Amino acid sequence: MENNNDIPRALGRISYGLYVVSSSDGGKFNGQIVNTVFQVTSSPARIAVGINKANLTHEYISRSGAFSVSVLSVGTPQVFIGLFGFRTGRETDKFGKTAHKLLDGCPAVTENAVAVMTVKVENSVDMGTHTLFYGSVTAAETLSGGDTMTYDYYRNVIRGKTHKNATTFNTAG
Amino acid sequence: MENNNDIPRALGRISYGLYVVSSSDGGKFNGQIVNTVFQVTSSPARIAVGINKANLTHEYISRSGAFSVSVLSVGTPQVFIGLFGFRTGRETDKFGKTAHKLLDGCPAVTENAVAVMTVKVENSVDMGTHTLFYGSVTAAETLSGGDTMTYDYYRNVIRGKTHKNATTFNTAG
Repeated sequence: MENNNDIPRALGRISYGLYVVSSSDGGKFNGQIVNTVFQVTSSPARIAVGINKANLTHEYISRSGAFSVSVLSVGTPQVFIGLFGFRTGRETDKFGKTAHKLLDGCPAVTENAVAVMTVKVENSVDMGTHTLFYGSVTAAETLSGGDTMTYDYYRNVIRGKTHKNATTFNTAG
Repeated sequence: MENNNDIPRALGRISYGLYVVSSSDGGKFNGQIVNTVFQVTSSPARIAVGINKANLTHEYISRSGAFSVSVLSVGTPQVFIGLFGFRTGRETDKFGKTAHKLLDGCPAVTENAVAVMTVKVENSVDMGTHTLFYGSVTAAETLSGGDTMTYDYYRNVIRGKTHKNATTFNTAG
C-alpha cells in the first residue's frame, strides 16, 4: 500500500508566487490575494488563475470577463496582504487607499507590485469549490526591478497565513 | 495607450517550481520537465498541469489517464534536466538509468525529487498548443527535507534554458 498521508506535505512543496487578482463591476473595483497564477501557453500569451466561487472577485470576473494580475514584491507588508487576502470587498473598499491604475480598462493594483497585466477571459473551468479562469494577456507593464514574493517566502519567512478559500489551503500543510 | 511591449517581461515575473511529469503507455515509461504544476482546489486535493501536445508524455497521459509529479530539489544537476527537459522519449529511454518507482500504478521519478504524487486525470482543457490536464491526487510521498528548485533559481542562478515547447517560453523573456 502507498502512504497517502503525505498528500498535504507533498502539495506544500509546489512553488508559487503571490499576486493580487482584480476585476471590476461597473464602477466598483475589487481584488484579492491569489497564489495560483500561471502561464498556460506562450503563443498566445495565456494566463490561468483559480478563484474561489465564494469570493466577490469571482463575481466581478464572471460579469466583466476580464481580470488583472499584480505580481507582488518581496517587500510587500503584512497589512497589505491582510487587506487583500483576509478581508472581503463586500465590507471593505480595498482600492480606496491603494495605488492602482486602469490597464486596458481593468483595475490593477500597482502598490507593492513589480508587474501588472490584464487578461481577457476566453473561458472558464468549473473545479467544484473554485473556477479556473483563463485567457490572453492584452496589456502588461513592469513596474520595478524588485524581487518577487514567493509563496514559500511568505509562508516560511514572514510566517504568513493562508485563507481557507485558497486553492492551496491544506489543513495538515 | 498602454505599453504592451512588456508582456514577456511581466510574464517572466510569475513564480514556478521545476518538476518531472511522468506517465506510462503499457509497460513504457516517459517523463518530461514542466514548470506549470499547480494546485487548483484543496478539497479534493486537485492538481493541474500544462503539457505541450507535441510531447510523448502528452500521448501517454491521454491514453493512461494518469500522471505523476516529481518535485525537483534545488541540487538537481543540469545533466538530469537536460535528459528530461531537452530530449524526447521517442529516441531516449529516460527511465533506463533514472531512479523511479510505481506510485499508485504510475511511474514516478524519485531521483532528485523531494516529493512525488500521482494524479488521476478527471478532465482536460484544450489550450491550443498545450493541454491542461487536471485531477485528484491519489497518492503522494515526501522523499527528503531538501529545498525545492524554483524556476527562478534554475533560470537565474544555474542559467538554465527553457525548451521551446514549454508554456512559458517567451522569446523576449
